[in-house]
Amino acid sequence: MFSFHVDAQDQDGRARVGRMRTLHGEVRTPVFMPVGTHGSVKSLSPEDLRSTGAEVILANAYHLYLRPGHECIRELGGLHRFMSWDGVLLTDSGGFQVFSLSGLRKIDSKGVTFRSHIDGSLHYLTPGKVIEIQESLGSDIMMCLDECIPYPADRLYTERSAQRTREWAMLSLECRRREGAALFGIAQGGMFEDLRRLSARYISELDFDGYAIGGLSVGEDKELMYHMTSVAVEEFPRHRPRYLMGVGSPEDILNCVDMGVDMFDCVLPTRNARNGMFYTSEGRLVIKNARYRADNRPVDPECDCYTCRNFSRSYLRHLFLSKELLVYRLNTLHNVYFYIRLMQKIQEAIYESNFSGFKTECLHRLSQHGGEDFV
Amino acid sequence: MFSFHVDAQDQDGRARVGRMRTLHGEVRTPVFMPVGTHGSVKSLSPEDLRSTGAEVILANAYHLYLRPGHECIRELGGLHRFMSWDGVLLTDSGGFQVFSLSGLRKIDSKGVTFRSHIDGSLHYLTPGKVIEIQESLGSDIMMCLDECIPYPADRLYTERSAQRTREWAMLSLECRRREGAALFGIAQGGMFEDLRRLSARYISELDFDGYAIGGLSVGEDKELMYHMTSVAVEEFPRHRPRYLMGVGSPEDILNCVDMGVDMFDCVLPTRNARNGMFYTSEGRLVIKNARYRADNRPVDPECDCYTCRNFSRSYLRHLFLSKELLVYRLNTLHNVYFYIRLMQKIQEAIYESNFSGFKTECLHRLSQHGGEDFV
Repeated sequence: MFSFHVDAQDQDGRARVGRMRTLHGEVRTPVFMPVGTHGSVKSLSPEDLRSTGAEVILANAYHLYLRPGHECIRELGGLHRFMSWDGVLLTDSGGFQVFSLSGLRKIDSKGVTFRSHIDGSLHYLTPGKVIEIQESLGSDIMMCLDECIPYPADRLYTERSAQRTREWAMLSLECRRREGAALFGIAQGGMFEDLRRLSARYISELDFDGYAIGGLSVGEDKELMYHMTSVAVEEFPRHRPRYLMGVGSPEDILNCVDMGVDMFDCVLPTRNARNGMFYTSEGRLVIKNARYRADNRPVDPECDCYTCRNFSRSYLRHLFLSKELLVYRLNTLHNVYFYIRLMQKIQEAIYESNFSGFKTECLHRLSQHGGEDFV
Repeated sequence: MFSFHVDAQDQDGRARVGRMRTLHGEVRTPVFMPVGTHGSVKSLSPEDLRSTGAEVILANAYHLYLRPGHECIRELGGLHRFMSWDGVLLTDSGGFQVFSLSGLRKIDSKGVTFRSHIDGSLHYLTPGKVIEIQESLGSDIMMCLDECIPYPADRLYTERSAQRTREWAMLSLECRRREGAALFGIAQGGMFEDLRRLSARYISELDFDGYAIGGLSVGEDKELMYHMTSVAVEEFPRHRPRYLMGVGSPEDILNCVDMGVDMFDCVLPTRNARNGMFYTSEGRLVIKNARYRADNRPVDPECDCYTCRNFSRSYLRHLFLSKELLVYRLNTLHNVYFYIRLMQKIQEAIYESNFSGFKTECLHRLSQHGGEDFV
């Protein structure tokens, strides 16, 4: 059922537009996927998400396994019905969460033991269990369990963990039962170019529906992140979607689309929204600044999202300073809309074989007020 | 411009339906007005409010005077435009807030000195200043500055403060400048029947567009609150709207409509929503209860609000336990919808001269799971 087709390739670089067919409809790539960890993109309703143009959202198998439980969600008709979202759902395996949220964790060749960050209970997850969880959720695109390592990590540890991720990837392929859902493999390899290349190559030898790059944007320099991404993408098959996990800023997305990445997810637009930072066509805008106190203009005069059509900077600043709940939704709506529109413009530019020019102009505009007072 | 017309009176009691004409459209009474203290009904957008059927919302002159400042809002085109609400706006004078939120306060015959609860700055509000603030906001229905006393309060203090509230009411009438906006007087009188009656009578002698009962629901017994309400309403003119400030539960509303009250505002539906307590046609429902873990039914099977049409108890419980921002909006939408629908049903019942029967049935249903585990 799942398929991917490259529709156009930019003439100058590796950027490309494509279409993924999934159990819940078609997705145009390059795509940005808003993050809905617990089965909700923070502050947004399914209607809100649709209004931004979002086609895929992300949920997290680890979190939903712990609460309310994947079996509970399966009994209620699956995650789509549970959260009332009829678009495409990608579920992350939870590898990253096991390694970042859980206090105790112990890895063996078969899986990982960890303590719940909610109630301290002990759990054991295997590659097969993680597939079972995602199939129970009714995910359209599932991710393999991988081992995420801390940064920095030494070469030996990185190599061993990449090897384990490879073995788990093979096990994952054997465990899938549900027809039609896609399964993506994840390449690791830390910050070592040769290990990144090897991991990407090994994963590419396995018959996944798509290929992901994990373990980046964990504290390393931008240039290193870009380099590792480029190295992995070079190894990935051309006819399958490429997904750079957890990345990134609009600038990151422009640069990585240029390397041939098709899919992105990141908490930046949603988290920054809740902190009062807007992405606009003229750069970043920090709403709490005194200069917006009596500013009747919309956040971004070029934007036609619900927030920009109805509310002024002054009102949003007032809501933000008053800690009014409405502001989190209004801000998030704008930032997600901004990201989705960016992806649509990227697609158009690639179709018109003008990605390089578009990227240059876009990076210039984004940097205009990039400084403001936002860190 | 402002007018009020009684369309029907229940045959058994004092309940009545009417229509208020305001600068921003017509309002059917009895009406419930959701509370938007800082210029936002917590978690709801103007579209959300419209979808509940709300016709009037409340904002607070005291809060908006302190932040962002009434002059700022006037310069930006008024409060309707500021918050993107084209329905009717009633602004409370802030009397209650001055006396409940401000640390220091000093009352003299001309006004009240207080410290801002935001930054500690000193302010002096007079009846005239409070009208000026509300006129700057572009309020459709303004309230006089009154003196709200603590509960319990002794007779002498209560009498003096009611007298001051009367003097301020006269000053307020002299100060209004803006054509078309309504101005309501407020009766005080604490918990003394004769003082309540006298205060209501004195205020009724002044030519206000409507008459309000202040200083109730401050900790006294229900029966006392009902009695004081009844006493005041008896003194109010029949051809003007009667507004019971800060009240109440669905039960309170049913009982006070029966006494001839036309307007209500209260934070209960919105605050309880944020605490996970729903009003339903079968009584109250506390969403965190374990029994709803895998409950696929809507919160209220008889309700057709957005929340009940799209989400299960199980999902709302999950969002609530996960502290997901979306849940505050979904819960608030339901509770406000419930209140507005209750008022519509009350209106229908009065038109059909069946208010007494409706009230009895409604109180019975509301009490069914009234206990649950909610305090």
